[in-house]
Amino acid sequence: MCINPPLYRNKKTQTVILRICGAAKPPSAGNLSAGMSENLHQLRCFGCGARISGVDASPDFRCADCGDLFEVEYPGWGERKGPDRPNPGALKWLWRERRCSAEGLDHSGVWRFRELLPILESFGNAVTLREGNTPLYHLPRAARRLGIDQLYAKHQGMNPTGSFKDTGMTAAMSVAKERGFEWVACASTGNTSASMAAYATRAGLKSLVLIPDGKIAWGKLSQAMDYGAVTCQLKADFDGCLTLLTEIVNEAPIYLLNSVNPYRLEGQKTPAFEIAEAFDWNVPDHLIVPGGNLGNSSALGKGFREMHELGLVARMPKISVIQAAGANPLVRSLAEHGGKSLEPVEAHTRATAIRIGNPASWRKAARAIQETGGWCLDVTEAEIAIAKAEIGAEGLGCEPASAVTLAGLKKLRAEGKIASSETVVLVLTGHSLKDADYTIDFHRGTLLTADESAGREAEIVSLQRNAQVVEATPAAVLAALKGRAG
Amino acid sequence: MCINPPLYRNKKTQTVILRICGAAKPPSAGNLSAGMSENLHQLRCFGCGARISGVDASPDFRCADCGDLFEVEYPGWGERKGPDRPNPGALKWLWRERRCSAEGLDHSGVWRFRELLPILESFGNAVTLREGNTPLYHLPRAARRLGIDQLYAKHQGMNPTGSFKDTGMTAAMSVAKERGFEWVACASTGNTSASMAAYATRAGLKSLVLIPDGKIAWGKLSQAMDYGAVTCQLKADFDGCLTLLTEIVNEAPIYLLNSVNPYRLEGQKTPAFEIAEAFDWNVPDHLIVPGGNLGNSSALGKGFREMHELGLVARMPKISVIQAAGANPLVRSLAEHGGKSLEPVEAHTRATAIRIGNPASWRKAARAIQETGGWCLDVTEAEIAIAKAEIGAEGLGCEPASAVTLAGLKKLRAEGKIASSETVVLVLTGHSLKDADYTIDFHRGTLLTADESAGREAEIVSLQRNAQVVEATPAAVLAALKGRAG
Repeated sequence: MCINPPLYRNKKTQTVILRICGAAKPPSAGNLSAGMSENLHQLRCFGCGARISGVDASPDFRCADCGDLFEVEYPGWGERKGPDRPNPGALKWLWRERRCSAEGLDHSGVWRFRELLPILESFGNAVTLREGNTPLYHLPRAARRLGIDQLYAKHQGMNPTGSFKDTGMTAAMSVAKERGFEWVACASTGNTSASMAAYATRAGLKSLVLIPDGKIAWGKLSQAMDYGAVTCQLKADFDGCLTLLTEIVNEAPIYLLNSVNPYRLEGQKTPAFEIAEAFDWNVPDHLIVPGGNLGNSSALGKGFREMHELGLVARMPKISVIQAAGANPLVRSLAEHGGKSLEPVEAHTRATAIRIGNPASWRKAARAIQETGGWCLDVTEAEIAIAKAEIGAEGLGCEPASAVTLAGLKKLRAEGKIASSETVVLVLTGHSLKDADYTIDFHRGTLLTADESAGREAEIVSLQRNAQVVEATPAAVLAALKGRAG
Repeated sequence: MCINPPLYRNKKTQTVILRICGAAKPPSAGNLSAGMSENLHQLRCFGCGARISGVDASPDFRCADCGDLFEVEYPGWGERKGPDRPNPGALKWLWRERRCSAEGLDHSGVWRFRELLPILESFGNAVTLREGNTPLYHLPRAARRLGIDQLYAKHQGMNPTGSFKDTGMTAAMSVAKERGFEWVACASTGNTSASMAAYATRAGLKSLVLIPDGKIAWGKLSQAMDYGAVTCQLKADFDGCLTLLTEIVNEAPIYLLNSVNPYRLEGQKTPAFEIAEAFDWNVPDHLIVPGGNLGNSSALGKGFREMHELGLVARMPKISVIQAAGANPLVRSLAEHGGKSLEPVEAHTRATAIRIGNPASWRKAARAIQETGGWCLDVTEAEIAIAKAEIGAEGLGCEPASAVTLAGLKKLRAEGKIASSETVVLVLTGHSLKDADYTIDFHRGTLLTADESAGREAEIVSLQRNAQVVEATPAAVLAALKGRAG
């Protein structure tokens, strides 16, 4: 049986959809675009509320009036019966059907939901590497230990370049391409540069990466090199690189792709749609996200908020953000200033992806936490290392920054803030291969100092799996297996 | 409209399928298993043709009579009208519908095709990490340079642990679990151990990895540690490790998961199904596969052969296997002995995943090449490095071993063996992050010796993207971009 409700409350679109369904094949981007305006967005300043057209933003994506960040909004969605307001039931049907589609754009877990990110003049400009559609894994061991049956990991490290950044990059790079840029750029300690470089070359654009001299996860920089980016090492920290880049994009026609770019967040909100869809549109109770530059928690909050406003889901999950204790400016902001102001900190953590002292999207993330009733807390280096090894032992693995989610969950559970009956989703942001050195150092016992591991030594040793040198005989090898937990 | 032909030419199954379709939801594994025998396989010796039951194989998977390897066969498929012979049209419909299914097993690109790997007593025993369903990317730059419009890469490096091994491991690990083993083991230089360790812990089993002391790609070993494997370094080469492991599994109840295990190949054949499906069951003209232990080319050959025999596709593609010049035993076997015997070589190549001098599955691979009219050739270290950088510049990236496919294609094209009108698919076997050091060394100019790069210097320099140290001023950064191809 073929169900074909109108996708939009608009006669012309409805006719197109009905025609498509009559042909008994899933609607394609091309068909849909015949009946709807693809570009429906404007930018709204998060600080002063000023609204501008997408093409009028300054090159550094800061509000000319107050200097705050913009976010994308879709005015047509405000009217309850407006012609541009999507129909929830039809969307759910369409997005599901697209999973069987042969069209390239439908294979992207971002553009499959393109009705909720109408940021392009033409979806034909979308630059995709088949990002998204990432696995939602059950975590049986951690669930048992923590007494939470419904514990899942949404593994964004399974994206093409190995991190969650790909979902945002496909969106923002498509805008860069559509607007005719030849160069794109970012300041990045790793994952962003890898993702940007891949999507840039796929789009036929050239890319520039600014990195702080030293303190690089080489595995990540290797990708920017591999994908053909021009990489400049500067004698500056991350924030210094970003400041310099802001000057550069104000001088030269280079498109800025740091997370101040509001289109990145439009792509990064789509895992929220995937999560809701996986739970058959009953959202989980609790979502736990690592907090670095805070674009990801902001974006996921936006995704759930929009779904809720459009009637796709009945409520939002609690969204909690976990930071490393050595890079916890949002934790401090919420504890000391109620999330109204943020003091940058000097960031120290081995979880390089969240080693950020002055996060760009802190206001947006604070809103997501506060409006959903989530928490923000920090975890130590030892807690991160242990949690990472435990996620490895689930057969998943992740980069260190992702492991703060499990470490944070343990604290929340210990504090009685999460009930055993709740459904919890951890957002893992990067692949285990993103920082192989960290893994090797942990298992060889050279990662943590004695101070850092104090009191947790037995737990750490029980998780370590150093490669042993063994005599090449069956007896010696079998002896090595005795008493091993595996 | 709902099309519901019988899946099997069997009244009972047909009834089940019709009932499922009537309920307007995709058939699940549970429903299907009600109407068909899940386990339909036996093992056939590739050398002497002896047939045994799957449970009667010796622990080292060698034929007791002639010492050759087994392959899985499905006797029910031989009878043109037999009840166990799948119905091609119904299968294509079912596999497509499963892409929209909410059931976990259907999210696996291996088990989605489970009717063609009925190796388990119950599909409920399948151990999956949502492997498969990997992207098929167009390669626009390489296509233009080589004058082949229809040039694609099937990127098996986008599997959960970053290599093609996952598709085979899900199959063989499921057998290990179903048969009640507590320990599994492999000798591996990298990708196999990473994959085995992940699936073992997912299955609740313990895993042992034997590796040669030294010559390890640490990025890969880091994964085996991360996923909790016990790793033993032995003073032996790869073949020595495998010999010792054979002794061990004959002594102790440990399940052998090297590629001599015929169930690995059953999983590894499924990318052939994905490729055929992506081309709407018109197979490409040519498939190009890296050749190391030769299990992958064997498996893909088997996949296309079975599809052809069952009437799912009209013909097989040519299958060509490319080796590194320093690890080319199959090239020599075919050139010097017509593929009838193989002399092991001492293997030398920086493409660690194919640094194998005595490949286990050479007979099966030779058959795949010979029966399809493909070629087998080798490429130099410089050719591999250049091809890898070119795949990086497409925005995809891959591990070095994967790049032999593009290097080989260039040679085949130069020799006039592939016409510009042909559709060519390169099988990329590992993710770029699997060997970040190789990428860094290439771009820094420290990978190749002067002898190795002789005559290709300009081409190599044009691809290198070393990170430059630049003064932290806009002018200095903009100067660094001048004249850069991106």
